[in-house]
Amino acid sequence: MMRACLVLFALLLVSATIALGTRDPEVEQCRAKCESERHFDKERRQRCFQRCEEKQSRREGGDEIMEGRESEEEEEEQGHNPYVFEDRHFVTGMRTQHGRLRILQKFTDRSELLRGIENYRVATLEIDPQTFVVPSHWDADSVFFVARGQGTLTSVCKDGRESYNLKQGDIMRIKAGTTSYVINQDNDQRLILVKLIKPVNTPGNFEAFFGAGGENPESFYSAFSNEILEAAFNTKRDRLQRLFGQQKQGGILKASQEQIRAMSHRQEEGRGGESKGTFNIYSQRRTHSNQYGQLYVVDPSRHRQLQDLDIGICLVNITQGAMTAPLYNTKSTTIAVVVEGEGYFEMACPHLSSESQGSRRPAGGPSYQKVSTRLRQGTAVVIPAGHPSVVVASKNQNLQIVGFEINGSNNEKIPLAGLRNVINQLEREAKELAFGVSERQVDEVFRSQEEEFFFKGPRQQHQGRSDE
Amino acid sequence: MMRACLVLFALLLVSATIALGTRDPEVEQCRAKCESERHFDKERRQRCFQRCEEKQSRREGGDEIMEGRESEEEEEEQGHNPYVFEDRHFVTGMRTQHGRLRILQKFTDRSELLRGIENYRVATLEIDPQTFVVPSHWDADSVFFVARGQGTLTSVCKDGRESYNLKQGDIMRIKAGTTSYVINQDNDQRLILVKLIKPVNTPGNFEAFFGAGGENPESFYSAFSNEILEAAFNTKRDRLQRLFGQQKQGGILKASQEQIRAMSHRQEEGRGGESKGTFNIYSQRRTHSNQYGQLYVVDPSRHRQLQDLDIGICLVNITQGAMTAPLYNTKSTTIAVVVEGEGYFEMACPHLSSESQGSRRPAGGPSYQKVSTRLRQGTAVVIPAGHPSVVVASKNQNLQIVGFEINGSNNEKIPLAGLRNVINQLEREAKELAFGVSERQVDEVFRSQEEEFFFKGPRQQHQGRSDE
Amino acid sequence: MMRACLVLFALLLVSATIALGTRDPEVEQCRAKCESERHFDKERRQRCFQRCEEKQSRREGGDEIMEGRESEEEEEEQGHNPYVFEDRHFVTGMRTQHGRLRILQKFTDRSELLRGIENYRVATLEIDPQTFVVPSHWDADSVFFVARGQGTLTSVCKDGRESYNLKQGDIMRIKAGTTSYVINQDNDQRLILVKLIKPVNTPGNFEAFFGAGGENPESFYSAFSNEILEAAFNTKRDRLQRLFGQQKQGGILKASQEQIRAMSHRQEEGRGGESKGTFNIYSQRRTHSNQYGQLYVVDPSRHRQLQDLDIGICLVNITQGAMTAPLYNTKSTTIAVVVEGEGYFEMACPHLSSESQGSRRPAGGPSYQKVSTRLRQGTAVVIPAGHPSVVVASKNQNLQIVGFEINGSNNEKIPLAGLRNVINQLEREAKELAFGVSERQVDEVFRSQEEEFFFKGPRQQHQGRSDE
Repeated sequence: MMRACLVLFALLLVSATIALGTRDPEVEQCRAKCESERHFDKERRQRCFQRCEEKQSRREGGDEIMEGRESEEEEEEQGHNPYVFEDRHFVTGMRTQHGRLRILQKFTDRSELLRGIENYRVATLEIDPQTFVVPSHWDADSVFFVARGQGTLTSVCKDGRESYNLKQGDIMRIKAGTTSYVINQDNDQRLILVKLIKPVNTPGNFEAFFGAGGENPESFYSAFSNEILEAAFNTKRDRLQRLFGQQKQGGILKASQEQIRAMSHRQEEGRGGESKGTFNIYSQRRTHSNQYGQLYVVDPSRHRQLQDLDIGICLVNITQGAMTAPLYNTKSTTIAVVVEGEGYFEMACPHLSSESQGSRRPAGGPSYQKVSTRLRQGTAVVIPAGHPSVVVASKNQNLQIVGFEINGSNNEKIPLAGLRNVINQLEREAKELAFGVSERQVDEVFRSQEEEFFFKGPRQQHQGRSDE
Repeated sequence: MMRACLVLFALLLVSATIALGTRDPEVEQCRAKCESERHFDKERRQRCFQRCEEKQSRREGGDEIMEGRESEEEEEEQGHNPYVFEDRHFVTGMRTQHGRLRILQKFTDRSELLRGIENYRVATLEIDPQTFVVPSHWDADSVFFVARGQGTLTSVCKDGRESYNLKQGDIMRIKAGTTSYVINQDNDQRLILVKLIKPVNTPGNFEAFFGAGGENPESFYSAFSNEILEAAFNTKRDRLQRLFGQQKQGGILKASQEQIRAMSHRQEEGRGGESKGTFNIYSQRRTHSNQYGQLYVVDPSRHRQLQDLDIGICLVNITQGAMTAPLYNTKSTTIAVVVEGEGYFEMACPHLSSESQGSRRPAGGPSYQKVSTRLRQGTAVVIPAGHPSVVVASKNQNLQIVGFEINGSNNEKIPLAGLRNVINQLEREAKELAFGVSERQVDEVFRSQEEEFFFKGPRQQHQGRSDE
Repeated sequence: MMRACLVLFALLLVSATIALGTRDPEVEQCRAKCESERHFDKERRQRCFQRCEEKQSRREGGDEIMEGRESEEEEEEQGHNPYVFEDRHFVTGMRTQHGRLRILQKFTDRSELLRGIENYRVATLEIDPQTFVVPSHWDADSVFFVARGQGTLTSVCKDGRESYNLKQGDIMRIKAGTTSYVINQDNDQRLILVKLIKPVNTPGNFEAFFGAGGENPESFYSAFSNEILEAAFNTKRDRLQRLFGQQKQGGILKASQEQIRAMSHRQEEGRGGESKGTFNIYSQRRTHSNQYGQLYVVDPSRHRQLQDLDIGICLVNITQGAMTAPLYNTKSTTIAVVVEGEGYFEMACPHLSSESQGSRRPAGGPSYQKVSTRLRQGTAVVIPAGHPSVVVASKNQNLQIVGFEINGSNNEKIPLAGLRNVINQLEREAKELAFGVSERQVDEVFRSQEEEFFFKGPRQQHQGRSDE
């Protein structure tokens, strides 16, 4: 139905622009299409307009080369491989010269196939050494993972404040409505947090609320009438205007060494609560570990902080040149973000497959198509429950991936090759009937790999998305 | 996409009606638009048709004055300020000369921004002294607050019945499928209930089911075949037709003094269960109280009746001329209904703001727009989690507001001015960096108000929505 | 809005096809409409294309007789009686000459009125004697009821496997991601399972994942690159290709007597766990029982296996010529499937009623329309919470219906006639006011039926949907 409308709309616009004649019809059409986006989904609109502008400058310059954008648009409309997200699928939530907050597009803006995780968002916060992120609260719950660097997070409530030291591998949950701020007290290293966000008001949409601020970040106090503010603060208008008109440097600021020291110092003193607030993934149960890799898993049913969100977290470390077993999660959809290194990813997908076949489902059951992508730092991948997938590390570098597991309690990872793979558990007759060969032939394949969960990788390193 | 279709449809209709020529094209277009509404959303259609009819009578009479309706239509299409609901946003669920049930439109019919509370509805039941509301059950859970008057509610199950006395401030939960009826036994005062309704079948849609009834209210027994009814009741058809053809006076009826007395008497006898069924908000913890106002809060995690719905309730009493602190709820979306008095409301909203800016988000973060409205009895306001807001009472009268807090367990109200405001808890360096001024200048503003939660209001009473 | 687009689209297509002139415009239009369906909803598209093809063959053969299909299309577009599902509303999930998996269409493809159960699907698995269903896992939780026959289900995890004997009336829950397979070890009888499925990834959409397989059922291993498989299995490519290229017989296979015996034998040995895995509905509390019928109910709050899904199950046995009381469920929506016998069904529905009245709601309250259908084996009916309904068995045969009760914990069935009917519990004045007659006249009707829950049926057996 939606697509019917899209087609129609495009048709009409074509006629409309032909009728008008004078303007560049393609660019006009592009903008009109953006105008027609649901009016409150501003991120989507914003990206849409950006594409139109790029289209225009290309046309004006006679330049048709910027293929990346063009292909994004196409890709989105055709809906192919909606499981992989790269740089261009992020929008800027906040940016100054000292850092930025990047937010992954809404999953349902990408594909209806991702409607099951519609109410989750992913963001990364990257801030320079010796910087300060202005206090704010969000209308969203969030969980973050410290991918790199070290810092201090302070959360404030009406009765006081608590500070938590952050180091690589730390996990912390911030409840909706909690005012908090962060410093990077390191002298050299950026601090990078990967966040999973669950909005509490409108599914998939959230906002930051800055109280302390001025013009940039704008303080929400400025939205109220002067008379209200005067009465609320029992203070004259001019003094208020002076206070809320000062800040213009944006939400991520350079701080002096003294300021950083003071905030770090105080936080280390006031600590104690660290165990309540954060915990480190490396102190968790290492589910699997061998020379080819390690898996750390946080089950939300065992962590009070994550229990009500039902979000688990896993960290996969793959040794250079190694790979994971093909495996699937029984009930979690995993949103995985590459923290370090390079490699590639393959997944078997029945949904895309049936599309490309013109939706004729074979009577014998579904068929599967390969979804594959190169992985590099920042790439995000959605792995739906039940879908078999594999990750391979490049030959040069270890690959480290953090995964947020939606619907995480009692999730299991089922290995499809190697020790304890599920096919080995079938009884003889089931193997023979299912594969149509003797049990010996099945076992020759399924019992040759003697490692569990992490294996030696393919000898010839795969390059890009092409099949061998 | 939706909007694209809307525009398109309007265009086509214009051409269609121009082609036809003879009829009033605007009215035809109006009706055609109503026809195209999702066919099961009858309330929306109903209101749509009503507007067309009004349009017609205005045109026929050459009368273009009825601005209220016109502006409603506009407002809805433009989606401005979707957080405030007035008289015209209610539809009539049931009405006789002795009372009425008014139902607030579906939140998502107003704006996609309210999708998070799509499955909640608000209604008010107002009944005259000495009246009886015919027994029915709903395919919805509900919680009601007695805003005014006194009455008796009786709920019936297959093993008996229980009666509960109702007085102002009482709260009661009615489970889905429970057959119940109400009397107003007072001699003078109307009984007014404010209800929050959570449908169990179709999100946002519910119906009343009347068994006892006839032609009006129609009994659902009449929908069955005669042969079925004869067998089920082991009774001849003519006797059934006589029984189910009698009642024609509607669902809210005048009762005789004897009938009222009999039902009141019996209920007072059979009471005892009152403590199980109802509780009064004035017996709850008074969270804040001073000469400027009082706040009563019911946390659903402490009330068995509200726990599974996760709905909290609060009552705010603001002394004439006073105001609340600017504050926000950490995780609840509050649906507030004015029970008594007048005043006004302001809220800082990042969503509307970004719309009006053509969806260009400043790189430093979001910006905020003021949402404001006059408040009078019956006005409903939606306050999403995290959004700072203020309520001011008029100079002449106390203002009383009941709030249903969706997602209410462990919600906190965070004050943004006055004693224990959250900015005061920031450490010195955070204040200085965030505001871009010295700590002294911040404290001059944030420490001048010495009251907590309720303050003396603005000296000059604000009138209407205009900014000063 | 959706309908607006539909109408529009149809209009444009008409013009388009008229312009083209040469092709059969109706068939083209039909196909274009199918193309425009949401592209990932393949089942819906598939059925849509099927209808177009049938339309074409009819036109080519000058045959306009196949009314069934035509009326289905109409019916869906008009949205009448969206509560009844017959043969044509199922699609084939899997089919070989030895059995089939049939899946009921998505509820929201039928009507927006069913949005509340959008994330549930119903399927029936029917397999011949002495057959084997190839192991697979689903990205969905499921609960099944053994409607007929006997078999063995084996579930496999990474640490072993467990087998469960299945007999008529057994209920079992299969968790998402669990690999399982089934045999029918009977010599004569088909095994029929009725399943309720709750997808975990995309609401309302699920897939089967076959690891053990080849070309048909296709193994998901085949979707991975050869280099990946070689490394994962530590095995050469040609051996892999041999293994995964063998099976071509589909997902439901004939097994030899020896294979069946081996799998049955082993399962009966390894049993023990049966009590954990399955339980039988006939061993449950018989809520109601008399000469006219029996009701068995499984409350999910008392069964660990069903608790997290909140799905209850009931079995209704109605003696030939008898009927149930008119009754409603307080909070569950029931999806009922006829397991055996014939009869008919009536329900009072306020939603359809208001549609047919042009959406003018009478001020006195809602009115109700009869929804009715003949029942035969395989018919599925959705009964929303609160909606009064009746089932009547044919004169020749007992009628047996299994019901999945969504939102099942603490649901109650409220009788509307017979012993302990809810009207009898009203106090005298309430009866008189509500019906507008004397209490005696009410009681004459409501106290004549002395049975409870199951009654003697109508004397003249109703035929088809016509009213008498």
